[in-house]
Amino acid sequence: MKPSAAIHCGPFSVRLFTKLLVLAVIGFGQPQYAKAQADPLPSWNEGEAKMALLDFVSQTSDPESDGFVMPVDRVAVFDNDGTLWAEKPIYFQIAFVFRGILEQSVDHPEWNNQMPFKAVVGNDLEALRHLSVQDVLTLAFASYPEMTQSSFAEIADAWLSTVRHPRFDVLYKELVYAPMVELLDYLRASEFRVFIVSGGGIEFIRAFSNEAYGIPPENVIGSSLRYEFVETENGYDLMRKSEIGSINDKAGKPVNIQLHIGRRPILAFGNSDGDIEMMQYTSSGDGPGLSLLLHHDDADREYDYDKGTERALGLASSEGWQVVSIRDDFSTVFKVIE
Amino acid sequence: MKPSAAIHCGPFSVRLFTKLLVLAVIGFGQPQYAKAQADPLPSWNEGEAKMALLDFVSQTSDPESDGFVMPVDRVAVFDNDGTLWAEKPIYFQIAFVFRGILEQSVDHPEWNNQMPFKAVVGNDLEALRHLSVQDVLTLAFASYPEMTQSSFAEIADAWLSTVRHPRFDVLYKELVYAPMVELLDYLRASEFRVFIVSGGGIEFIRAFSNEAYGIPPENVIGSSLRYEFVETENGYDLMRKSEIGSINDKAGKPVNIQLHIGRRPILAFGNSDGDIEMMQYTSSGDGPGLSLLLHHDDADREYDYDKGTERALGLASSEGWQVVSIRDDFSTVFKVIE
Repeated sequence: MKPSAAIHCGPFSVRLFTKLLVLAVIGFGQPQYAKAQADPLPSWNEGEAKMALLDFVSQTSDPESDGFVMPVDRVAVFDNDGTLWAEKPIYFQIAFVFRGILEQSVDHPEWNNQMPFKAVVGNDLEALRHLSVQDVLTLAFASYPEMTQSSFAEIADAWLSTVRHPRFDVLYKELVYAPMVELLDYLRASEFRVFIVSGGGIEFIRAFSNEAYGIPPENVIGSSLRYEFVETENGYDLMRKSEIGSINDKAGKPVNIQLHIGRRPILAFGNSDGDIEMMQYTSSGDGPGLSLLLHHDDADREYDYDKGTERALGLASSEGWQVVSIRDDFSTVFKVIE
Repeated sequence: MKPSAAIHCGPFSVRLFTKLLVLAVIGFGQPQYAKAQADPLPSWNEGEAKMALLDFVSQTSDPESDGFVMPVDRVAVFDNDGTLWAEKPIYFQIAFVFRGILEQSVDHPEWNNQMPFKAVVGNDLEALRHLSVQDVLTLAFASYPEMTQSSFAEIADAWLSTVRHPRFDVLYKELVYAPMVELLDYLRASEFRVFIVSGGGIEFIRAFSNEAYGIPPENVIGSSLRYEFVETENGYDLMRKSEIGSINDKAGKPVNIQLHIGRRPILAFGNSDGDIEMMQYTSSGDGPGLSLLLHHDDADREYDYDKGTERALGLASSEGWQVVSIRDDFSTVFKVIE
């Protein structure tokens, strides 16, 4: 019904039009956004998880609600590996590290007999499966030795723009979950500030986060090396040192959230035991707090595994975290794959 | 001349009006913004500094300009003490620390005979003038002992909301420079992302930065303590440890800029030798880069001192930094003071 048509059809229609107008403005006592707009989460199936998200965003954004949160405090944090993009068969950044080791290995014949390099050079899957955290760090430092930050950014960008995933045969950076990208957009449209809080390397993620998720570099928190300020022949630059600055995992996540963001998030989304502390912190503030845990249970469309998530899954019910099932809650998994 | 008046005054005036209109639209080969809009920097006197700012913002924002910078890369960084707000007679945060020491001293009679506490408790100005960095840290840790981050934020907020500056008799947090607040607004309106990069404590600055400058907590970088994730009777929280996380001064500034922001700024504004590396880093990128140094040379309206800024002032000319004079370039210093 066009307003102008209604107004010229006599007193009854004018009254009806006014009534509809009032209803449209005040809503029907339901979440405003969900009723008034097109579905902001079309890649999510109807169900408990989608409802929890819509309700939470609606409550925290509604000045009339007890759960209203000022926009400046609408902070949402997302793990990256296994939460925003896939993490199998190996963490994508590990594939990037292995590529670096193979490239460096031509200058290091001794690596053929030296662990953990030997495992990578010889593609020894059994040995690779048992690498320790220290092994992985040793490999990471050796794969891309000390260089300027800008050189590293170029190398990461080149890898992300060319190397394809072994199973899905698309670029790694294309393997982002469509429902999660929708959720990021929905949160930003609702004046949330969205951050990545990942155990992965902060600069590796920054090399694609703005393109893939619309998350700019300053909103990425991750594990980091130390930098050194240096004078080069071209001016001043930052050198990446082979020293750990911070491991952004487990209790390191809330600690770095405070350092970078400066307040407690009200929404956290993770998928593994490394996200437990971030979810506990988010869910125990004074005001509203929603924590969600993505469960990989869809071997057909993605992967099916609990390893590394057993503790988090066990805690979800008692801690009040919303478990999200890829099989049941995602109508689409990857946007790029039919 | 009113346009409508000109149009009705015969062909010559119409031509003149058209000419003026064309000039107004295309500009005079000068910054578009300055000509086309109301003056975005009314508290700045006309001069080299104001022109440098208007030119730089105009160039970096103009897609037709060689100096155009994509909005995501329009990063501007500001020192805080002596750049955005005053820093005399002592750093405001030091006044806050001294207040904490005096409050704690009732439980610490031994401080009467123990440096550096003795200097504060006895108000020994000569001794206070010679405190080392280590002394200041010792005082800072003792002034507000280990507590949760939320408790500290409340204490800082209470102090900032009540304690007045000894000379100007207004709240410390009101002693922000009007021209600098205008500049922050102007940059944001031109799609810059604005950050504080201060040697001061990150959480102390966060306690007032959003209110005073419109800079939210996540855009504040400062010196920091270590935090510890703890479980309390009320849930999970972060405890402030009496250990230094990072000293955000000198070369620490570009290092923390990379950690928090993830790219090189294109505009830096400082006022002391502690800002030299940040300005060098900003001015030596591949694209445009503007560094500015605020010079305190106005004893009447603010303060007149070079101490702690000698090296930076000496470097300004050879490094191409724009020196900004409070006396000459600021038509208003503090908005709250007539």
